[in-house]
Amino acid sequence: MSQTANSKIYAAIEGGGTKFLVGIFNANRELLAKKTLKTQSPAETLGACTRFIQEDSRRFGKLTALGIAHFGPLNTLPSSPDYGKLGRTPKPGWSHFDLLGFVKEALGTQLPIRIETDVNGAVLAEYAWGAGQGINNLLYLTIGTGIGGGALVNGALLHGYAHTEMGHIALPRLPDDDFEGVCPAHGDCFEGLCTGPAIAARWGMPATQLPDEHPAWQLEASYIAKALRNYAYTLAPERIILGGGVMDRRFLFPMIRAAFIDEMAGYGEPSVDLDKYIVPSGFKGDAGLYGAFKLALEA
Amino acid sequence: MSQTANSKIYAAIEGGGTKFLVGIFNANRELLAKKTLKTQSPAETLGACTRFIQEDSRRFGKLTALGIAHFGPLNTLPSSPDYGKLGRTPKPGWSHFDLLGFVKEALGTQLPIRIETDVNGAVLAEYAWGAGQGINNLLYLTIGTGIGGGALVNGALLHGYAHTEMGHIALPRLPDDDFEGVCPAHGDCFEGLCTGPAIAARWGMPATQLPDEHPAWQLEASYIAKALRNYAYTLAPERIILGGGVMDRRFLFPMIRAAFIDEMAGYGEPSVDLDKYIVPSGFKGDAGLYGAFKLALEA
Repeated sequence: MSQTANSKIYAAIEGGGTKFLVGIFNANRELLAKKTLKTQSPAETLGACTRFIQEDSRRFGKLTALGIAHFGPLNTLPSSPDYGKLGRTPKPGWSHFDLLGFVKEALGTQLPIRIETDVNGAVLAEYAWGAGQGINNLLYLTIGTGIGGGALVNGALLHGYAHTEMGHIALPRLPDDDFEGVCPAHGDCFEGLCTGPAIAARWGMPATQLPDEHPAWQLEASYIAKALRNYAYTLAPERIILGGGVMDRRFLFPMIRAAFIDEMAGYGEPSVDLDKYIVPSGFKGDAGLYGAFKLALEA
Repeated sequence: MSQTANSKIYAAIEGGGTKFLVGIFNANRELLAKKTLKTQSPAETLGACTRFIQEDSRRFGKLTALGIAHFGPLNTLPSSPDYGKLGRTPKPGWSHFDLLGFVKEALGTQLPIRIETDVNGAVLAEYAWGAGQGINNLLYLTIGTGIGGGALVNGALLHGYAHTEMGHIALPRLPDDDFEGVCPAHGDCFEGLCTGPAIAARWGMPATQLPDEHPAWQLEASYIAKALRNYAYTLAPERIILGGGVMDRRFLFPMIRAAFIDEMAGYGEPSVDLDKYIVPSGFKGDAGLYGAFKLALEA
């Protein structure tokens, strides 16, 4: 069957710690079908994803490629024998799961597949169609169930010995804050202090239930600003996009910008309007899904 | 006068906060002449550099190009109207100095010149000929009068809204350490805690006079390891090269490697021998000069 560009069909999976999104796109970036799944065991969750793809893509045509933007740690180096496998993670059942192998088994070994971290997918989507268009040195940070960053440098994904693990940087503690943090490895790293689960553990109630006036949010903004300072001095990104569930509290943005200015203390700060420097995602919570679609286009 | 490749003559200036190095190279990377100068006012120091270049290069042939690897903050974007000008710096007399303008005035506007930060020059030299050959994701860090980092990502210099300012990241303080730090902007950032001048201010004597057994060095190694953790999680460099005067104390390397392993806590660390991961410069204190030569070759 020959296909014109517009009839090509792509599948996209965004794998997150709380939920998975799976979508079917055409080449015009139209989302033809979408499903949201609660994250359970790898076999249950990915089994449901691949069944959805098999059943729903058939309605639209033959599948051209699949992109997966998935939480880490994850081997994203195609040259590695462990490409597409997860690393050690505190999520029960997910450590060392062979994501690529499972998906190939379900969908066939001929299907072109590209796998990246969720945040690397997101930064690609923001660069292509979202809040980072034309910004060659771009940082996307998610603050939700976990914290992670994806960066473009000179227009290409930053990859080194592995994908980055930006959530695990060490930060100075705020005075009188003795919360021990929730990171199983580091305790009070940025991720240990500032994820949704960290907020819940610190204040004894789910982050979603904390009112806007709660002091939790100023603390949160202060720590986020310290982290952004470190990323700014280390990566000099031309724009920083903040996504993830915590950042749905939009009132955090001006608080973070004000604290960021204090952190930089007039030294080496970006000479642009901060309203255009620290910005929300250009997608309504599905930057990762569009990122997975971008990966499918490039697979 | 026609020149074969081998007869081409290049000048190189490494501008540091304590001293300047100026060298004349041929295309075979032979250092034909070299001079070391104490850093004084811009006009005195750079005047002496350009006089040396004019007088000494003449002995070897016509100058082909000049490379400058200079302390920042410095505008290194050729497209900017401020290209080659320094930013605000605590060094008396150097703020906003027009480095490129001064050198062009002295050596002629026809001479091809490329200007970068000292650490960006150094990382280019380490990549070409030093301790980072073939390592496409490479970090060079200098710890001396100041602290700065130069990174290659995908084999190219990391540049964003400006050059990086890696010395100014925020770090957690060690227990019972209440030294206020010497950074004029931030106080106790990495640079404020760990440069040569910071060590001198903390312990009341020049760093060079502290004996190897002094507790200063364990403290120094612990803070450096925290910084390396943050760079590792943010940049995932495949190798980290440490240069600068403080790192002449070679016994710091094993102390830093041990503390780095503790900092990473088994999460997302590079899966290589740390003896080959955190390494000294491949140059004997003049990585920046060779970096300036590399810049001249590319000018």
